[in-house]
Amino acid sequence: MTIDYDKLINWKFEDIEQTYTFKDTILYALGVGVSMDPLDMDQLRFTYEEELQALPTMAVVLAYPGFFLKDPEFGIDWVKVLHGEQGIEIHKPLPAEGTVIGTTKITEIIDKGEGKGALMYSTREVREKTSGDLLATLTSTTFCRGDGGFGGPAVSAPKPHELPDRKADAVVELPTLDQAALIYRLSGDFNPLHADPRVATSAGFKAPILHGLCSLGVAGHAILKQACGYNPSKLKSLGLRFSAPVYPGETIVTEIWQDGNRASFRCKVKERDLVVLNNGYAEIG
Amino acid sequence: MTIDYDKLINWKFEDIEQTYTFKDTILYALGVGVSMDPLDMDQLRFTYEEELQALPTMAVVLAYPGFFLKDPEFGIDWVKVLHGEQGIEIHKPLPAEGTVIGTTKITEIIDKGEGKGALMYSTREVREKTSGDLLATLTSTTFCRGDGGFGGPAVSAPKPHELPDRKADAVVELPTLDQAALIYRLSGDFNPLHADPRVATSAGFKAPILHGLCSLGVAGHAILKQACGYNPSKLKSLGLRFSAPVYPGETIVTEIWQDGNRASFRCKVKERDLVVLNNGYAEIG
Repeated sequence: MTIDYDKLINWKFEDIEQTYTFKDTILYALGVGVSMDPLDMDQLRFTYEEELQALPTMAVVLAYPGFFLKDPEFGIDWVKVLHGEQGIEIHKPLPAEGTVIGTTKITEIIDKGEGKGALMYSTREVREKTSGDLLATLTSTTFCRGDGGFGGPAVSAPKPHELPDRKADAVVELPTLDQAALIYRLSGDFNPLHADPRVATSAGFKAPILHGLCSLGVAGHAILKQACGYNPSKLKSLGLRFSAPVYPGETIVTEIWQDGNRASFRCKVKERDLVVLNNGYAEIG
Repeated sequence: MTIDYDKLINWKFEDIEQTYTFKDTILYALGVGVSMDPLDMDQLRFTYEEELQALPTMAVVLAYPGFFLKDPEFGIDWVKVLHGEQGIEIHKPLPAEGTVIGTTKITEIIDKGEGKGALMYSTREVREKTSGDLLATLTSTTFCRGDGGFGGPAVSAPKPHELPDRKADAVVELPTLDQAALIYRLSGDFNPLHADPRVATSAGFKAPILHGLCSLGVAGHAILKQACGYNPSKLKSLGLRFSAPVYPGETIVTEIWQDGNRASFRCKVKERDLVVLNNGYAEIG
């Protein structure tokens, strides 16, 4: 199995059409732990159909093409891939319900060399079906640990966003539920690693881990609370690097640095004092 | 507004057809608080699509005709109605997904007299569409507080199931989530009383209350755990009387008496030492 660079870079993904309802929008928000306090009206706007608003980070589950790297056509050692980075640009607030079209493409594959893996960059544009308006652009970096030395470009990877060299300006602590992964997966990522203790154990974890994109949703919640006054239309972009998994039930502590319209952040798990999301940035409009 | 006995007793409800998927089955179980410990394999069978089983109490959300009493045609003072009792008979284990048809009828309306209200008894039969097999019969008693003295039969109401006069044989304690009502309502009962603090306050509650049928699901979980070894096909019937509302986040303590194949139970809220579900019975097969 080896990566065929030209084939992948030119791969035509089928567009994904998804119709989602207010129930899906609420379910996503409950999955990332919003409305832990059901009396908090700032949060209830994401979990109650009356004047419902979608969390900006919900874009990551819209028109999701599935785990396409598993397709043998790609020639990727998919068992060894890791989700490295995720970026979200919001061009227009996500409707609370609607039909969207997702267009995915692979934009670059960097060869880190034999034994060092490869970095695959992909992009998904999510458009509103009726208006054709671009809602969100999702960028994703996949670390293909088993695919180095395939003969692709050996350029350096773009540097991650650097965090300011000072104490954080604010800290937001958000618990996750023990059932967080079980709820979150109903938004579409049914990887058994997040539900089945047997699969988790055989992958080397003590228990099913939280989806990386679920912890991203918790970080997005922290930014929305601290830097956007819970106004979802203020969050223009957000990105981060995944550095370690979170277990459902752990508390995610987000350290935030604010510099004008730019926020930087990283997240630690309180119980293990471990950085789980790093090099985070967000643009506030 | 007054009840027209003959009209209601002969009311032809439209059949309700519902297709539900494994996601709905999992969502129902998460809504009643199953898999609080995601490592508990006995519970994971209800919240993970691999070898998924439906909770027997899920029958109450299948082919639900909606809050039909609100229809002005019925002549009922619907603002004053309370869900009094609920019974479930399971004829065949509920499939983890499928299409069902629900047939509802009003079976009796007892007139308790002017100022004393009326008791309306209704039944819903839930059938599997393809086989036509009867899956469950749901019986419901509605206390119409504002409709006494309409001239209907003044017979005595059937007595509720009497609990044994001895200390309970077992006690099962199950917590509920603060978001329990927000999750549970995604199974179809969107009454804002369970989500909107403003609606709850105007109805005289300090916060949104849990759905009575959600607390019934918690009681069903307790019986399933204590008396059925988590084997859902062992639960043949279950019924109870609603006596007080539960707030999300409270712990439900189920006292269980076992006499052969018959279990009796009642539920208290631990935090307020208050009986919330009473006169409970279950048949174990």
